[in-house]
Amino acid sequence: MARALELARQGLYSTHPNPRVGCVIVAAGRIVGEGWHVRAGEPHAEVHALRQAGETARGATAYVTLEPCSHHGRTPPCAEALVAAGVGRVVAAMQDPNPQVSGRGLARLRQAGIEVEVGVLEAEARALNAGFVKRMEHGLPLVRVKLAMSLDGRTAMASGESQWITGAPARAAVQRLRARSSVVLTGADTVLVDHARLTVRGEELGLAPEQVALALQRPPLRVLVDGRLRVPLDVPFFQAGPALVATVSAEREVDYRAAGHELLAVPGEDGRVDLPALLAELAARGANEVLVEAGPRLAGAFARQGLVDEYRLFVAPKFLGSTARPLLELPLERMAEARELKIRDIRAVGEDWQIVAVPAT
Amino acid sequence: MARALELARQGLYSTHPNPRVGCVIVAAGRIVGEGWHVRAGEPHAEVHALRQAGETARGATAYVTLEPCSHHGRTPPCAEALVAAGVGRVVAAMQDPNPQVSGRGLARLRQAGIEVEVGVLEAEARALNAGFVKRMEHGLPLVRVKLAMSLDGRTAMASGESQWITGAPARAAVQRLRARSSVVLTGADTVLVDHARLTVRGEELGLAPEQVALALQRPPLRVLVDGRLRVPLDVPFFQAGPALVATVSAEREVDYRAAGHELLAVPGEDGRVDLPALLAELAARGANEVLVEAGPRLAGAFARQGLVDEYRLFVAPKFLGSTARPLLELPLERMAEARELKIRDIRAVGEDWQIVAVPAT
Repeated sequence: MARALELARQGLYSTHPNPRVGCVIVAAGRIVGEGWHVRAGEPHAEVHALRQAGETARGATAYVTLEPCSHHGRTPPCAEALVAAGVGRVVAAMQDPNPQVSGRGLARLRQAGIEVEVGVLEAEARALNAGFVKRMEHGLPLVRVKLAMSLDGRTAMASGESQWITGAPARAAVQRLRARSSVVLTGADTVLVDHARLTVRGEELGLAPEQVALALQRPPLRVLVDGRLRVPLDVPFFQAGPALVATVSAEREVDYRAAGHELLAVPGEDGRVDLPALLAELAARGANEVLVEAGPRLAGAFARQGLVDEYRLFVAPKFLGSTARPLLELPLERMAEARELKIRDIRAVGEDWQIVAVPAT
Repeated sequence: MARALELARQGLYSTHPNPRVGCVIVAAGRIVGEGWHVRAGEPHAEVHALRQAGETARGATAYVTLEPCSHHGRTPPCAEALVAAGVGRVVAAMQDPNPQVSGRGLARLRQAGIEVEVGVLEAEARALNAGFVKRMEHGLPLVRVKLAMSLDGRTAMASGESQWITGAPARAAVQRLRARSSVVLTGADTVLVDHARLTVRGEELGLAPEQVALALQRPPLRVLVDGRLRVPLDVPFFQAGPALVATVSAEREVDYRAAGHELLAVPGEDGRVDLPALLAELAARGANEVLVEAGPRLAGAFARQGLVDEYRLFVAPKFLGSTARPLLELPLERMAEARELKIRDIRAVGEDWQIVAVPAT
């Protein structure tokens, strides 16, 4: 199963909206077939592995990181393919959270007399597809907030000067976070002040050529939250390709469409963009993972509304000082209101450090 | 030598103003004597080890973490003791930076026909006594600034509320930092607002009973920087034992002396306490390591004046928000002024994390 997960990870940058899935077929203690899901619309991991195994699949054990599908999507159901190949045993890391499957694939296998086991390395399998799982279970994408800060928790000088807080390896890590996401979301301030384009740049990914090619074939949707439509259409962000603009009124839709962009009205009660509604809409469009790369105001709004699943803090070993800008606009008065987090991981990224923290619930 | 350093570390909480030193005597591939320096005025590491080795020291190799002393201090010179015991070879991790020794101990050994080697695990040996080395080489103590902060770089709410940002394991780590220091230094704000006493509390050290006993026998000198003498003599800080108060004028010396404390005038040009002069005075009194536990104003002054050798940041996994107090009062305008640091170590301390950072020079 560890090998199947390793194969599944090959699809980190290319499977969405589908989950990343790997499959290994073992006959007489030997691997006879391997496969991973590459892209939506193409064969699933099981199909690749069964093709490679050929006749040796008969009576063999198939290890899959996700319950084989039972429904006719863009490809025929994998449960049927496993039955047809005559495998003797199927070990799945986890049940498919997709309500169209959720146990039906395993039931189909058992019905055909195949021995079935579920739950091997389940935590790892769920973590690999945390966004897909959340979308299937809650109709919302996983929200990851990326922040680059100094050791004293600052993101920019008071003047707004902020470029290059962190080094090249940290920026490459951010590029990979973008590439694995279905959506990269930002706000008007970031696009106006930093001239951010939020594109995935192949040469900065630091990945093997095949992975770069896969990532570039399926770039994330770039979403701009711009309630008052302050960002003109000639900024680098809009020049870099089609984008989705979330705002409060669809009035100027024609202008945006003419320029190749989509305007989406998700008005909130306070005259701002309704962020939960926007996330639900993105999930409905198949977004598994949303990366928020925004300034303290918009990132702070996600934090205040409890919409963040994971913070990725890139910490540069420097002090920007007490007049520099805060990490999040998050005004709290009493210690009891402090947002408790759990640190999942801290690791060096070049001269900088990446801290992965999740809200402690 | 690794074993000798391990022995030397036993004196972490008790040797100052002396350095921590360990010694191992090896004869025919077997350890025949071990020792470490416990307290100033008591026998040095070599004497303990030679006593244990007895006659087997003849022709043996002595491993010492610091060059054996050559001068008559409170104990007779160790170089003579090694010569008298007839050891055949001495391996020292580093030369003694003490100008009264600095090579003379090794010269005495060589003169007596003993084979001498220097520089084995030197970096580790220097790190163990970094404060002693700095005092000997520069006439200044090592300055370590401890800060407890949230993940967004805040030390307290705007109201000043700050107690218990970090958990019990981090507080125990701070207790151990105090215990190993010659001086614990703070400012009027911390003593007034937080009612800080800055004492070493044995039960909170989390050390073995012998180590606790050693630490409590030689508590650090508590120093209060109070330029305008704002702190009244009845606060917990002064009730907890004798302290040294650094201020700008010796006018009220009598009052402080009557209460069991010392008033030291170190006036700076701007009507504030002259921090470099205070540090030089503390070094002259034998302070190797000074722990600064102060608010953003005083800690910021040490940072602004380039007086900090090491930051110990205890980071709690929470956000205190953007209106909370900054880590350091350190107003910088441009990115180019940012203080560059080097992160030496990051490790979990209970639910919190300790980051050791040093200025990048």
